[in-house]
Amino acid sequence: MGKRFDSSKVFYRFDPDIPPIGSVKLKEKVEIETRDCFSNQITEENQLVSSIDFSQVNPATGPIFIEDAKRGDALAVHIHKIRTAETGLIVTLPGEGFLGEDVKETRTRKCKVNGNWVDFRGVKVPYRPMIGVIGVASEDRHPTGVPGRTGGNLDTRYITEGATLYLPVEFDGALFGLGDLHAAMADGEMCVAGCEVRGEVEVEFDVLRGLSPPWPVLEYGGYTYLVVSAGSLEESLKEASRIAVRALSKAFSIDWHDAYMLSSLVADVQISQLVDPKKTVRIGFPTSVLNAKKLLEALSR
Amino acid sequence: MGKRFDSSKVFYRFDPDIPPIGSVKLKEKVEIETRDCFSNQITEENQLVSSIDFSQVNPATGPIFIEDAKRGDALAVHIHKIRTAETGLIVTLPGEGFLGEDVKETRTRKCKVNGNWVDFRGVKVPYRPMIGVIGVASEDRHPTGVPGRTGGNLDTRYITEGATLYLPVEFDGALFGLGDLHAAMADGEMCVAGCEVRGEVEVEFDVLRGLSPPWPVLEYGGYTYLVVSAGSLEESLKEASRIAVRALSKAFSIDWHDAYMLSSLVADVQISQLVDPKKTVRIGFPTSVLNAKKLLEALSR
Repeated sequence: MGKRFDSSKVFYRFDPDIPPIGSVKLKEKVEIETRDCFSNQITEENQLVSSIDFSQVNPATGPIFIEDAKRGDALAVHIHKIRTAETGLIVTLPGEGFLGEDVKETRTRKCKVNGNWVDFRGVKVPYRPMIGVIGVASEDRHPTGVPGRTGGNLDTRYITEGATLYLPVEFDGALFGLGDLHAAMADGEMCVAGCEVRGEVEVEFDVLRGLSPPWPVLEYGGYTYLVVSAGSLEESLKEASRIAVRALSKAFSIDWHDAYMLSSLVADVQISQLVDPKKTVRIGFPTSVLNAKKLLEALSR
Repeated sequence: MGKRFDSSKVFYRFDPDIPPIGSVKLKEKVEIETRDCFSNQITEENQLVSSIDFSQVNPATGPIFIEDAKRGDALAVHIHKIRTAETGLIVTLPGEGFLGEDVKETRTRKCKVNGNWVDFRGVKVPYRPMIGVIGVASEDRHPTGVPGRTGGNLDTRYITEGATLYLPVEFDGALFGLGDLHAAMADGEMCVAGCEVRGEVEVEFDVLRGLSPPWPVLEYGGYTYLVVSAGSLEESLKEASRIAVRALSKAFSIDWHDAYMLSSLVADVQISQLVDPKKTVRIGFPTSVLNAKKLLEALSR
């Protein structure tokens, strides 16, 4: 095992002025410990999310300086392993989530996590560990709780073991961080939380020179995803769809109308989350049609 | 092989007053031939969708009277096999599709279909055959081109080989029909069409007594889906989410707030299509958590 970063040093903004907590080389295996999304402030069901310090919500461990990652590159983050704690929790809060207007009660529930299941009130929920917050320093210095162009609170369930995430490097060294693991979270993240859990992630970095994308790109499970976030679901879907059609047009040297038809055959329009300050969608292309490299090239031209 | 229905007799409304073209028994294998969504009016790229008879768009072969399917039952449609023709086509039309305002040209493109690929302009698109229009007679007599409570133009790509679709029986005999096959269509159906193709479908019917659901339910690939359509995407998502939370509450005897949290762990909110007169979404539950029978029971209580 290579370097390890514990969760004592975290940040709350993708801000290039926050000093790095350490540096790693390209292709060096790195272990990163994470707090849960509440900075471990809640451990029991009688502790409500209404009583915690909100300035400590959505911490990312880091920033980590990636040697040789230069402005204008795509940073490739290979996610090798996610290990989660044995207890997670999930909450409701009036006004929060996709049906926020129906929520009357602030509530905390614990979930037991083992390698196969998350036990929620006796229901065996499939274990699907994933990373909620992941990103690099951005010119807009957005909070870790918001999804954006350089990553952030993407809450995209395919950001998981075996996936590679490509992020635009806006500052030399990238200044990477991650946190907010979920032992389970469904597309949409309806109630505003997944099974929130602390844990550790093994990652390895690489770069693709000069291929900085306008939005995160993800390769996982035979699909290449473009991950776009904007103020409303409709806006995210439109922006993602327009970029997808343009990328197909460039990748296959076909005009816009042909690319529009092709998108209807190969561009799966999907929801990542409906509940954060910006809404995140993804468009999935079969990798046999468009792998991450080809998509990054089409996006950068 | 059991009965076969050719595509000479089609209908355009889920209307109980249209006389059936024949009847089948429960658990009898049936082969149904289908026209493409344009009633086979277009065969060449120089024929544009603007010049065809629109009263013949989205035909469904049928109606087929299902013996012993009674009002109040859920009709189970097991989809055993889909065979598609070797040539399909896809179109653009100004104003149509999710980016309709950007479409300047009416265009027809042919696609070559073989067992593994759909060739679109030299791009090898994965072959994912599916049924666009499928449903039974409804009290609202909605057109086959519109998705609704008893089925219709659901354009949901998991309505494919190996899937079972559950539809509410509103009239004795159900009065079933299907059509509008696609050799490929991505989630969202961005340009308003998939690779539109004629073909044949092998199905088998069964009923679950008294379990008529409020919306179609689909079981496929380890997930159980609730398939909801409404006037806008937002409206479809809200309706589907509310029903999903209530169903989880009933299925597991937990209160609304716990069910809201559980939905955030197990209810994948997904898009079927963004482009028809109503927009269709689906919520997928792992079958290990909620199989079709359990979902139908929770919905009917």
